[in-house]
Amino acid sequence: MPPLRAVLRVICADRPGLVADVSGLLFRLGANILHADQHIDSEEGTFFQRIEFTPPPLDGDAARDRLAAHVGRACDGFGMRWSLGFREPARRMAILCSKRGHCVLDLLQRHRAGDLSCEVAIVLSNHDDLRLEVERRGYRFVHEPIANQGDRASQERRLLERLASERVDLVVLARYMQILSPGFVDAYKERLINIHHSFLPAFAGADPYRQAFRRGVKLIGATSHYVTRDLDEGPIISQDVARVTHRDSVEDMMRKGADLERVVLAHAVRCHLEDRIICYGNKTVVFE
Amino acid sequence: MPPLRAVLRVICADRPGLVADVSGLLFRLGANILHADQHIDSEEGTFFQRIEFTPPPLDGDAARDRLAAHVGRACDGFGMRWSLGFREPARRMAILCSKRGHCVLDLLQRHRAGDLSCEVAIVLSNHDDLRLEVERRGYRFVHEPIANQGDRASQERRLLERLASERVDLVVLARYMQILSPGFVDAYKERLINIHHSFLPAFAGADPYRQAFRRGVKLIGATSHYVTRDLDEGPIISQDVARVTHRDSVEDMMRKGADLERVVLAHAVRCHLEDRIICYGNKTVVFE
Amino acid sequence: MPPLRAVLRVICADRPGLVADVSGLLFRLGANILHADQHIDSEEGTFFQRIEFTPPPLDGDAARDRLAAHVGRACDGFGMRWSLGFREPARRMAILCSKRGHCVLDLLQRHRAGDLSCEVAIVLSNHDDLRLEVERRGYRFVHEPIANQGDRASQERRLLERLASERVDLVVLARYMQILSPGFVDAYKERLINIHHSFLPAFAGADPYRQAFRRGVKLIGATSHYVTRDLDEGPIISQDVARVTHRDSVEDMMRKGADLERVVLAHAVRCHLEDRIICYGNKTVVFE
Amino acid sequence: MPPLRAVLRVICADRPGLVADVSGLLFRLGANILHADQHIDSEEGTFFQRIEFTPPPLDGDAARDRLAAHVGRACDGFGMRWSLGFREPARRMAILCSKRGHCVLDLLQRHRAGDLSCEVAIVLSNHDDLRLEVERRGYRFVHEPIANQGDRASQERRLLERLASERVDLVVLARYMQILSPGFVDAYKERLINIHHSFLPAFAGADPYRQAFRRGVKLIGATSHYVTRDLDEGPIISQDVARVTHRDSVEDMMRKGADLERVVLAHAVRCHLEDRIICYGNKTVVFE
Repeated sequence: MPPLRAVLRVICADRPGLVADVSGLLFRLGANILHADQHIDSEEGTFFQRIEFTPPPLDGDAARDRLAAHVGRACDGFGMRWSLGFREPARRMAILCSKRGHCVLDLLQRHRAGDLSCEVAIVLSNHDDLRLEVERRGYRFVHEPIANQGDRASQERRLLERLASERVDLVVLARYMQILSPGFVDAYKERLINIHHSFLPAFAGADPYRQAFRRGVKLIGATSHYVTRDLDEGPIISQDVARVTHRDSVEDMMRKGADLERVVLAHAVRCHLEDRIICYGNKTVVFE
Repeated sequence: MPPLRAVLRVICADRPGLVADVSGLLFRLGANILHADQHIDSEEGTFFQRIEFTPPPLDGDAARDRLAAHVGRACDGFGMRWSLGFREPARRMAILCSKRGHCVLDLLQRHRAGDLSCEVAIVLSNHDDLRLEVERRGYRFVHEPIANQGDRASQERRLLERLASERVDLVVLARYMQILSPGFVDAYKERLINIHHSFLPAFAGADPYRQAFRRGVKLIGATSHYVTRDLDEGPIISQDVARVTHRDSVEDMMRKGADLERVVLAHAVRCHLEDRIICYGNKTVVFE
Repeated sequence: MPPLRAVLRVICADRPGLVADVSGLLFRLGANILHADQHIDSEEGTFFQRIEFTPPPLDGDAARDRLAAHVGRACDGFGMRWSLGFREPARRMAILCSKRGHCVLDLLQRHRAGDLSCEVAIVLSNHDDLRLEVERRGYRFVHEPIANQGDRASQERRLLERLASERVDLVVLARYMQILSPGFVDAYKERLINIHHSFLPAFAGADPYRQAFRRGVKLIGATSHYVTRDLDEGPIISQDVARVTHRDSVEDMMRKGADLERVVLAHAVRCHLEDRIICYGNKTVVFE
Repeated sequence: MPPLRAVLRVICADRPGLVADVSGLLFRLGANILHADQHIDSEEGTFFQRIEFTPPPLDGDAARDRLAAHVGRACDGFGMRWSLGFREPARRMAILCSKRGHCVLDLLQRHRAGDLSCEVAIVLSNHDDLRLEVERRGYRFVHEPIANQGDRASQERRLLERLASERVDLVVLARYMQILSPGFVDAYKERLINIHHSFLPAFAGADPYRQAFRRGVKLIGATSHYVTRDLDEGPIISQDVARVTHRDSVEDMMRKGADLERVVLAHAVRCHLEDRIICYGNKTVVFE
């Protein structure tokens, strides 16, 4: 069995000695630092650090909790916002989708191949179309329809109950074509990832491929981001683009875009699961 | 001496037989087709074609004019908008710039290396900063300052007079940081190319790198386009992007962006000079 | 029902009048040209053309055959090598794979989504590992093991029989880790597509990701090509690359590479199915 | 005046506590860490670190030397190979070129714009062609011709003398089309950067664009690397590629390639000047 790995992420106002403080703390605890990435936003004077380390042998959950408490007290003392994550037990992910399957099926395929270190708790959808393809692959699919506009709030409540009962840590919107309420968004702050099918902030809103076609752009894009109350405005995690020409119809753009969406979303989910992201303001630091 | 080359571009409502019409016409004239690109916008039912050919041996300007008249009559008969260009005599380009030299100096370097088949008639600027660098390279530089806001219109008039007296065919805005009046824009319709330092339509307007930094995007871009009366809204000719991370300051983005701007602008100018672009609506077909 | 589409591809020594010859022929037959791409290799003096058109209404297979015969006689008369393909009936594709599923499952997902206009006749493998995943998605899987080195020839014979009995038009090697005999390769000349997990010609041969890691390259690639008797030397159809750094282990490279392989292979298969490729010498013209 | 910056690079066998050792050392010296990047090659068990810091106020060269001696003793004690660089005084760069000017003129333009923090000591060439363009820009140009094959060794000796008398720290081969002797290469080990006009290891050797054209690749590349005794085999610093199609002639590839070469070479030179590169074995770690 590979040794346990842990990731400490900290953020605080910059000052001399921060790197020495944190690395000294971990060294004294008997941890071995595997990767240490650090960044200073010199405009804002903010310090960011991500440290991946093997902790000293931990005998059960209690030992792990003691370690976390110790690290936490020290980081509090340093005046840091901090987060300590262990690779075990695996995080539990839920995927929300609508009718188009390319993103959700791609995530499931990567999960099956062992490329995403999490459990897939459940796939939820407001439509039943993808049930067969999801279940065929051996995953659970639950249909939570929106009967009518008035049903919207109650459908969301059912989703939230399901996510709670499944003890979900991460919610991925894999082309889930519904706008979520502020209450939903707040409940999964920095744990709710969306894929938008454009190079945001260009073509925010609906039907970005048609917008892109009309504008005659020569590149199309995809953007994964954490969802906030402001639609399409949350912190960007990952983006990519592909070349198009006048020969590409809206349908061609959608097809090329689908390849981008799959790769960009998977990349964001993977970075999240590996605790590589620190949000601040409306931006991210992604330590790759 | 290589044989004369000509480029015919046509645009019209689509119907059967168009390709046969045009290629038959050129064949009967004794022309040899070198490249023929064609496109149909099936949403709009519009047909586009670019044909590069060696005309039959033409004895002087009169013969060339007769050929053009013949082709024109035929294309009119086919119900086409058309344009016929010869590589000789070379087009005359003017470059407008302000204080930053990377785009203008890059164009001059490409011109010197023989990569742009045109004459550089003149470099014009509202600032005198780049005079030394331009003149060192053996090109003419004229400073047309804007003394004050009230002087704006008269400075533009002086620019237009200069462009006219220099018989300029193409005006390139190589980071010329002034907004041109509708009158100027109309005078050089489809002959006025700008480089915008973002992936339009994202970050239109001023200071796009700062906008991009604040938004936390993971890619920055550059866009070359024909200038129309609507600022930053003209038909896009070429775009490209480069990857940035949280480590890139605004200054880093500007530096990476400068490399994009140079390449994207040079590509657009080259496509224009080779008659590869057809504008329609607010878009372009670029036959590469 | 959308009207029938056909694609004519021709290749011949260049001479004046070729475009007029072909477009005139199609016009007289009552065909409507939808796309016409043409290319001249001026070093070799070779002319290439791909024309997509809607033929006149064809009443049954006999009418289609008469059209093909007419076009063929004319093209023979023009001294052209030619190929005429109809979108209907759909081509039949077989996919060969070994143990890793990312390419084959990706092709199946695209086929299911309607992005590949063909029938998937069968999935064949020398290992049984992927049976469950393939059958779950509703496709037929046949295991043709290689019992031992001596069994190699007989296994290939069984594969060929299966391909013949399934009337397969296109064979795709989706990370099929076996070298095929000259006899197999010849039987599917220009109908046998492979994905190689490097930017060929760099890192030809086995284990290219490890080779790339050892050499310390900053980009990894994938290459799809038609298979010829010379291993990894066939005409290249499509290539793409992704950025890597010193932080990427061999496993990271494999994972990033898998995304490239899927997209590059799917692109090649799609170009083949749409008759966009003309092979000549050891190269391709791909009309996109 | 901005405070002095220093960069410490270390490499050693991996063991617990290394990050704490180095950051503690710098903290006790009164240094403020600005960036700290660290990497472990887990296959080889090697630890790499780059730390950029503002040292405590240093009163003159003697103080700087004392700091360097102190850091050096400590790193020796830790069992590290180390290098400590200060941004001041600026490094002195020489550029070697032959007949094509795109790379050398591009570097000069970036230097003029303030993008390369070094002095350009001299431009050397075996041909006189670029004298005018270099001198026009205000840089010194020296022609050291190779009179005949027999003159090769003596020309190299003259180059080495010139580099020595100009106290050159970094030699850049900007399309200098001569193979340098082992003696030359050894004299500038890890301080001699070349740009090769292909995606190495593909198309090593002469005339890579023609090789690429013949092979029918769909991407062309450029590679910057430190020069070692093995031609085209030295540690790669940076690479990039651009898309080509069957429409690109060898000349088109050269033109597109020239844009790659300029950007890739400039990137490598900048990484070197900012002490971002650590060589090990035949590879590089580039901390960006």
